[in-house]
Amino acid sequence: MKQRIKTRFTEFFDVSHPIMLAPMDQVSDGHLAAAVSKAGGLGMIGGGYGNQEWLEQAFSQAAGESVGVGFITWSLMRQPELIDLCLDQKPAAFMVSFGDSEIVVAAAKRRNIPTIWQVQRLDMAKQALDAGADVIVVQGQEAGGHGMSRGLVSLLPAVRDLAGNDQIIVAAGGIFDGRGRAGALSLGADGVMLGTRLWASEEANGSDAAKALLVNAKGDDTLRSKVFDVARGVDWPWYFTGRVVGNQFSNQWHNNIGELQQQVEAEQQRYLSSGADDFDTRVLIAGECLDGIQSIKPAKTIIHTMVDEAVDTLNQTRNCIIN
Amino acid sequence: MKQRIKTRFTEFFDVSHPIMLAPMDQVSDGHLAAAVSKAGGLGMIGGGYGNQEWLEQAFSQAAGESVGVGFITWSLMRQPELIDLCLDQKPAAFMVSFGDSEIVVAAAKRRNIPTIWQVQRLDMAKQALDAGADVIVVQGQEAGGHGMSRGLVSLLPAVRDLAGNDQIIVAAGGIFDGRGRAGALSLGADGVMLGTRLWASEEANGSDAAKALLVNAKGDDTLRSKVFDVARGVDWPWYFTGRVVGNQFSNQWHNNIGELQQQVEAEQQRYLSSGADDFDTRVLIAGECLDGIQSIKPAKTIIHTMVDEAVDTLNQTRNCIIN
Repeated sequence: MKQRIKTRFTEFFDVSHPIMLAPMDQVSDGHLAAAVSKAGGLGMIGGGYGNQEWLEQAFSQAAGESVGVGFITWSLMRQPELIDLCLDQKPAAFMVSFGDSEIVVAAAKRRNIPTIWQVQRLDMAKQALDAGADVIVVQGQEAGGHGMSRGLVSLLPAVRDLAGNDQIIVAAGGIFDGRGRAGALSLGADGVMLGTRLWASEEANGSDAAKALLVNAKGDDTLRSKVFDVARGVDWPWYFTGRVVGNQFSNQWHNNIGELQQQVEAEQQRYLSSGADDFDTRVLIAGECLDGIQSIKPAKTIIHTMVDEAVDTLNQTRNCIIN
Repeated sequence: MKQRIKTRFTEFFDVSHPIMLAPMDQVSDGHLAAAVSKAGGLGMIGGGYGNQEWLEQAFSQAAGESVGVGFITWSLMRQPELIDLCLDQKPAAFMVSFGDSEIVVAAAKRRNIPTIWQVQRLDMAKQALDAGADVIVVQGQEAGGHGMSRGLVSLLPAVRDLAGNDQIIVAAGGIFDGRGRAGALSLGADGVMLGTRLWASEEANGSDAAKALLVNAKGDDTLRSKVFDVARGVDWPWYFTGRVVGNQFSNQWHNNIGELQQQVEAEQQRYLSSGADDFDTRVLIAGECLDGIQSIKPAKTIIHTMVDEAVDTLNQTRNCIIN
């Protein structure tokens, strides 16, 4: 790498690149988080719904690298003992998303752990700013997994205008290469967060079958749906939907949630008894950026290529200015 | 203006700025289209569903300025005589969106009129490229009015990768200022198309009450819905939804379209008999970029400010590169 990109994000976290790993449930284990940090980004363990054994294993896998951890707030608040368990690990950052996170942010701040709050609307950004979160992640609807309906292109500059110039802001959703990294900088983001692009990495915790499907599926194939939350029996607040790759199961039920709920026991059993790699039934979580994912690569290659491309893009677009 | 931005778009259309007006139904009349062209952009008359009298008036209003015209394809194809009527005006561009537009593109090409095809998915971009459209507009779901579900951040670079470096591409949806103009350049767009931002202009064809509401409403207040198509009795294909500012009418029916359809006659009558500025009932079409719209301005101010800001943004982001 000849050149790098310096932003408030790299300064605050003392990392080489303004790129962080999305704390994807299951997928972002200690190996992937450590690989991202080792490559100069900010690695994040996917705390997900919260599972003590899994968390201890993930921190152990990452030993020696500085990594953060992220949770689904509404689920974490049902087992608040996990907050201190994670803070004791002195993570590089404690991230929250999907729910009122004031208590968690305050707990982390008392221990001098950097706090990251992911938001999906402008009113949520105000809530996160009022709570004093060090970093705001603005998640567009393009993102894989749970989220809401607003797109990144207008929400990101709106959050910047609300937050002012000193706030550290990260863009999430739909970013997969250096063009997205450069574009997010223009729109007001210091950092970018990668989910799907790093899910399609060698280090990500997932089967070869799942990763092969990530390479083959297209952005047009994804949709935001409640289907798999019902099928898995996970009680997400109604206003959060999950972006997934459409399959036979979602084709059957996406426009028919009422009927799915009427026969929920049988369908949950059918879902949970399907094979782990039966992706005609099982959910494959991924974002709209699948069109740009042609192969599974090492995390380091993904991050360094993104920075190189972003440098090229910033130079090329600057050259469009004429007198 | 000290500096400008030069792209394939400015070269192809021989205009000063890589910015075009969205051909908004009713709103983009001849006055607004001419104002945008006069300011150095590409003005577009909103042909909408197609109305001969309105079109003739709009071209007459724009007399002396080079402007284009755009249509809703599925509606235009019900009155194909309008195609030649518009081509006879030698418009700066003939734009189509929402449907199979091969016949229209071919007709315009035979007359050497530049063709613009707006797409909402990657498979639609392939269709438009196969038809030989001179310009592809990539519309993200952030946009006001009709559209689909994909966001701009990942769809735009995907279309660029599909189309290659020589294709002229325009980004639409969610762009309202120079940061968006600069960001779209990074993501692969030569031009940007402005709808909502120019709807909130002095020259746009709309009431003061509607424009005041554009200034007051927020991006979080908008949603994509079928409600107003049902209320107005307009038979859009089911996969296109319209982004609008939520109001009492949409609150009542958005999650209850089946029931609305059961009492469609009474509700259509209630809708159509409401006052033109009764925006508790009537639709106000607008995109997610409303957060960035603080006042109604002349079109020229909007366009020139956007270019100045974009130049600043391109310089500032370039300065983030370090060795």
